[in-house]
Amino acid sequence: MNITARILALFALLLCLPALVDTAKATSPKGKDTPSFAQILSESKGSEWRRPDPDNLLVMRLAAGRLVMELAPDYAPLHVANIRTLVRERYFDGLAIVRVQDDFVAQWDDPEGDDGGDKRKMRSLGSAKATLPPEFTRPIAASLPWVRLPDGDVYAPEVGFSDDFPAARDPAANETWLIHCYGTLAISRDNPPDSGNGSGLYVAIGQPPRRLDRNLTIVGRVLEGMDQLSALPRGHGPLGFYADPEHRAPILDIRVAADLPRMQQPNIEILRTNSPTFQRLLDASRNRHDAFYATPPGKVDICAVSAPVRDVSPP
Amino acid sequence: MNITARILALFALLLCLPALVDTAKATSPKGKDTPSFAQILSESKGSEWRRPDPDNLLVMRLAAGRLVMELAPDYAPLHVANIRTLVRERYFDGLAIVRVQDDFVAQWDDPEGDDGGDKRKMRSLGSAKATLPPEFTRPIAASLPWVRLPDGDVYAPEVGFSDDFPAARDPAANETWLIHCYGTLAISRDNPPDSGNGSGLYVAIGQPPRRLDRNLTIVGRVLEGMDQLSALPRGHGPLGFYADPEHRAPILDIRVAADLPRMQQPNIEILRTNSPTFQRLLDASRNRHDAFYATPPGKVDICAVSAPVRDVSPP
Repeated sequence: MNITARILALFALLLCLPALVDTAKATSPKGKDTPSFAQILSESKGSEWRRPDPDNLLVMRLAAGRLVMELAPDYAPLHVANIRTLVRERYFDGLAIVRVQDDFVAQWDDPEGDDGGDKRKMRSLGSAKATLPPEFTRPIAASLPWVRLPDGDVYAPEVGFSDDFPAARDPAANETWLIHCYGTLAISRDNPPDSGNGSGLYVAIGQPPRRLDRNLTIVGRVLEGMDQLSALPRGHGPLGFYADPEHRAPILDIRVAADLPRMQQPNIEILRTNSPTFQRLLDASRNRHDAFYATPPGKVDICAVSAPVRDVSPP
Repeated sequence: MNITARILALFALLLCLPALVDTAKATSPKGKDTPSFAQILSESKGSEWRRPDPDNLLVMRLAAGRLVMELAPDYAPLHVANIRTLVRERYFDGLAIVRVQDDFVAQWDDPEGDDGGDKRKMRSLGSAKATLPPEFTRPIAASLPWVRLPDGDVYAPEVGFSDDFPAARDPAANETWLIHCYGTLAISRDNPPDSGNGSGLYVAIGQPPRRLDRNLTIVGRVLEGMDQLSALPRGHGPLGFYADPEHRAPILDIRVAADLPRMQQPNIEILRTNSPTFQRLLDASRNRHDAFYATPPGKVDICAVSAPVRDVSPP
């Protein structure tokens, strides 16, 4: 690769198992230390990374910066198609983040559809569908990749990665589903299971809200820009909605990356979770031992290490 | 109780298993629905709540508001004593939150001791100790209460609550320790295990950083005001330190509640984790079934439900 591979600052930070030190100087013999995530990633091969399909990338612009999200059409084909339609018909442009509930979610939708809004003023969904069958789980299938994480899980019989998203399986029920970790993107809805259509979306910004698994349709995850959501002021209305509309964070626009001029498309790659390098990252997390860490955790939770993302823009 | 018991907004939100709905109207038969956390708490008895010892409460004032933290002297007696000394000698007043790393921690200390600071200008620790033996784990003892959570855990042989803090045990090793969940308060340090003294503290603001368990000394948890930390702008220097000192969030002061005038002391109570009401909350989380939730999670993670806190101030 003769392009400069710069690991995205956010994910480098997320992944470096950072030491809580002021001055991180290793004092034990260097050869015996668990390598850092940055070190492991620097030794990866180009073929271990994939460039996400730009038709599966959403780019959302807020006043403070950009978010990039990857969609999961293998798990939520109907919802992903509906979101693409909404985006392409400019449904979200000028809407806002309407809800930020601490340790839970940031959510955006048409505020006129929320409590206190005027439903008569709601935006038209255009040619998008108003109701969709829920896509909470799918049958296990050979077409759905599976990289099992053997460390166990409190909530599901099996956990692992599918299309590099955190996921779970129940072989006895022949079901698989994406799960809620930090950065998971999913569909908000009303009580009826088919009332979600993608016009309202949320991202998990705190501890993994795993109790939501199999009750909501997960459509992807945030690859870049999480702190555009996680550092927003919390809402103090019911459920963390902003009581004062002035506090909402406006969405300038959302685009499918494939529809952007080439120069504006995210130039990123994702480390394949079935790669030797990703397995090395998991092992380094389980068995970390260095000048700072004396007691390795032994295990790694499915939400604790996500597939790294790197910027491969020319310098 | 003839005082008005008002559940703190923050913890009510944290605990209500909030529905991701615009208009949360239950449509299924009311009697069959899992009761909400608010409903369960409203049926609690006064004796199920305890008033924390004001000598174990820290009150930190930031420009935006107040944080209240409960210390855990049963688990970190030496560090708790040193923190009380530092607080009583006004060590922290005028210092700042120096680091906010997304999905990880917010940390405060003397910036002159951090990279880029001038160590010659560091504040004196006064009569506090500069080094302390690490208090990463303790022997299991009858004097340490234990409310086991039977749902299992990825990282520890047993998890549960002790003094109403989330905790773990390894009976084979005869060890117990407090664990890292959202809101956990702990001691930052350099590489030597005895280099923490309480002059640098951090709070977990994202997914539970369980890999830190048994490698750092946990001294308590945040009871009130988490969003004063979690919504701070993220630092973009190495490890999430603020590259620009201007971005730091100044600490007006930290006090031990017992030292404050009675009217300024937090007027709060904590639900005992060995109470029937707390067990009802856990069951409601495991078995939630109502108009919105069709598939209960079946289990509850140790970090997913924390001991509720309520404000018992007179109206």
